[in-house]
Amino acid sequence: MELITVKELYKNKEQYLGKEVRIGGWVRSIRDSKAFGFIVVNDGSFFEPLQVVYHDTMDNFAEISKLNVGAAIVVRGTLIATPQAKQPFEIQAEEVEVEGASAPDYPLQKKRHSFEYLRTIAHLRPRTNTFQAVFRVRSLVAYAIHKFFQERGFVYVHTPLITGSDCEGAGEMFRVTTLDLENVPKNPDGTVDYTQDFFNKETSLTVSGQLNGETYAQAFRNIYTFGPTFRAENSNTTRHAAEFWMIEPEIAFADLDDDMMLAESMLKYIISYVLEQAPEEMNFFNSFVDKGLLERLNHVVNSDFARVTYTEAIDILDKNNDKFEYKVSWGADLQTEHERYLTEEVYKRPVFVTDYPKDIKAFYMKMNEDNKTVAAVDCLVPGIGEIIGGSQREDDYDKLVARMKEMNLNEADYEFYLDLRKYGSTRHAGFGLGFERCVMYLTGMQNIRDVVPFPRTVNNCEL
Amino acid sequence: MELITVKELYKNKEQYLGKEVRIGGWVRSIRDSKAFGFIVVNDGSFFEPLQVVYHDTMDNFAEISKLNVGAAIVVRGTLIATPQAKQPFEIQAEEVEVEGASAPDYPLQKKRHSFEYLRTIAHLRPRTNTFQAVFRVRSLVAYAIHKFFQERGFVYVHTPLITGSDCEGAGEMFRVTTLDLENVPKNPDGTVDYTQDFFNKETSLTVSGQLNGETYAQAFRNIYTFGPTFRAENSNTTRHAAEFWMIEPEIAFADLDDDMMLAESMLKYIISYVLEQAPEEMNFFNSFVDKGLLERLNHVVNSDFARVTYTEAIDILDKNNDKFEYKVSWGADLQTEHERYLTEEVYKRPVFVTDYPKDIKAFYMKMNEDNKTVAAVDCLVPGIGEIIGGSQREDDYDKLVARMKEMNLNEADYEFYLDLRKYGSTRHAGFGLGFERCVMYLTGMQNIRDVVPFPRTVNNCEL
Repeated sequence: MELITVKELYKNKEQYLGKEVRIGGWVRSIRDSKAFGFIVVNDGSFFEPLQVVYHDTMDNFAEISKLNVGAAIVVRGTLIATPQAKQPFEIQAEEVEVEGASAPDYPLQKKRHSFEYLRTIAHLRPRTNTFQAVFRVRSLVAYAIHKFFQERGFVYVHTPLITGSDCEGAGEMFRVTTLDLENVPKNPDGTVDYTQDFFNKETSLTVSGQLNGETYAQAFRNIYTFGPTFRAENSNTTRHAAEFWMIEPEIAFADLDDDMMLAESMLKYIISYVLEQAPEEMNFFNSFVDKGLLERLNHVVNSDFARVTYTEAIDILDKNNDKFEYKVSWGADLQTEHERYLTEEVYKRPVFVTDYPKDIKAFYMKMNEDNKTVAAVDCLVPGIGEIIGGSQREDDYDKLVARMKEMNLNEADYEFYLDLRKYGSTRHAGFGLGFERCVMYLTGMQNIRDVVPFPRTVNNCEL
Repeated sequence: MELITVKELYKNKEQYLGKEVRIGGWVRSIRDSKAFGFIVVNDGSFFEPLQVVYHDTMDNFAEISKLNVGAAIVVRGTLIATPQAKQPFEIQAEEVEVEGASAPDYPLQKKRHSFEYLRTIAHLRPRTNTFQAVFRVRSLVAYAIHKFFQERGFVYVHTPLITGSDCEGAGEMFRVTTLDLENVPKNPDGTVDYTQDFFNKETSLTVSGQLNGETYAQAFRNIYTFGPTFRAENSNTTRHAAEFWMIEPEIAFADLDDDMMLAESMLKYIISYVLEQAPEEMNFFNSFVDKGLLERLNHVVNSDFARVTYTEAIDILDKNNDKFEYKVSWGADLQTEHERYLTEEVYKRPVFVTDYPKDIKAFYMKMNEDNKTVAAVDCLVPGIGEIIGGSQREDDYDKLVARMKEMNLNEADYEFYLDLRKYGSTRHAGFGLGFERCVMYLTGMQNIRDVVPFPRTVNNCEL
């Protein structure tokens, strides 16, 4: 007899009530009296557990009663409605097979553990309610993103992870090498002889797939990337990881306005999908992790995102400068405290801030007519601050070259990128969504280490 | 007026015939006579192009007639049925705006280019028919995989790319470091002082997410990974890349038989999805890249995969040893020529080869009762050879430790993995599907460099 999932029992219970079923899962708790006992089982397919009642008529009653939390069992029995109980049904077991016992030192006894402690057992924490919910939602968010773009005909592009360029100089990079670090081969002048390295040149882990993504947008019109990205920054904060996933759509024949419309529909789509597919998990977060989460997310789905230029935003913030640790002034980048003030206090919903000073933005952003600002946009959301950063790209060959010279970039490194402005250039735009920040936003979890299965941060690369 | 995609015109043409439409795309070819001209436009949304007819009544008739292949244009006009022509309709243009001209040295003139040459312009090759087809299919295959697993309740897990362990010692690894290679810090004994490295230890790029994936299967029951994987192997073949994507499902309460059923349904699902979603591209491959492709794929969808044990397979191959460069013998791994002979000549369909000698397989595979073979499986397909490798995992703590000792593995490095056998161990199994091989299989493309947007191979890390 096939094992049925607990999810299937919950979704189609009418079909199974009064019938024999067989499930496999892990013991969350167990208590016994003389003649019978109760086991709460979770099989990983569904947030809610299932109660199993077993009796001393079973040959292995003693063995079962001695089971520890975490043990794996297979249960055969009848699914019975329990109208008086909190849960809708339970299994009256005919047979409980022990698939794998759980040693007495199982670290996840039935009590509350701190997130800090659970981080030290990253291989076991998905067995807890919180992390089961987090990582199922993470999976659903990823799928919602693919679904959103695929339904709109976007082509998914795998941009490379190992790169010979530094993209926009966006951040510190990890070196990738097969050289023997104990005996690094050197040139006569003492520099490293990279001709002996695997790729015959210096290579690193990518900080963004955007420039590569743009080349595909100029062939497919609408594309997106979704892959890992790396920063070797020494930032030990709750929002930074050395390895994280990023989504970078790129759209041709499109301007900054199209870009914002895309970002807004995408975020609304993701939220709606997760609310619909994981109501149990989302209720759990709302009750135990972040009260007000559901209200906030529902509000986002049902309201238009606000829009404000950077210059207007600075005016607004300047009037409240006494509230901030870092004082704002035109030309300086916004800090998280400013971003959160705008989205949480001023607009009370997501807000697009546009047209940033060119000096704090990347070389490829389209220059506005004022020659001082560029067609950039950040999307700020309550509880997080910046979740999306995008821009319309400079599509004029001469302007792009001029800007690269101003910023001392080496033209030769960007020949392929300039080609796009030489052969059928189009208005185009795109943005980057930090996947982990998106999961934090949807779950209310406060530390990026708690939304990545095996987080990599400064001095931490466990498991 | 919004730009409409060529795909939308083809899918819902009744809605648009006789109406004004506006499209944006790139010129594939152009020819003009005195009073009018024809432009073939591709907008990247659909494999088939669209013909645009323009007239000398337009102000910019001369400008248009001078356009080069590759130029980007926006066309407004009426969609007209063309029952006499090969294509179902064309646009009678009212207006052709030049969005971006294409310089005279555009490398993709209207002629056939070799795949070798096109590899040198990886940023432009998706604008050709072949690569437009390849990379749309690649995107659809990726989505089909997500769809297959998500519809079955599998949880998508992002296993880490940067790792402190070497998994199964499955291959040569790339080192990841932020140490200054010109001045590598050393310990007194001359070894590298990794305490000064970013993660405070030696780290590399992963060769498999399986061991991490298993930890999540013991929480969610059914999971899959889909992410980049790396091999620093000096193999300059048509089937090896240094960076590639891999899918690794892992299922708990499941044995090798369940594993094979999962692999078979997954492959059939992917093929059906792509045949349905990209008929134009698949017809193109069948006509111009690999004649017989469609027949082969349809055959796979409609037939049960064959099954044979390694020992039986050796018997069969041994009788035909004169056909092989490498002669087979029990205990040696199968070479590609053997694999292809089995699937192409003997079974003429995909075949699962099971129960390999333990000495040629990884430490974590479940020992069979004969104590000589393990519950491993490779899936071989015509045209490729091995496309999937999987196994049931050893779930017995003592047997696993014994096997690790035999293979001189350091127990301390695998503590988290052994924990899974200590706390609620279950039968479980999984497999790895090489994503690029899967795309090659579906398109008939013969070189892995032609199914990766920006391939990374020995001595090659361009763009």
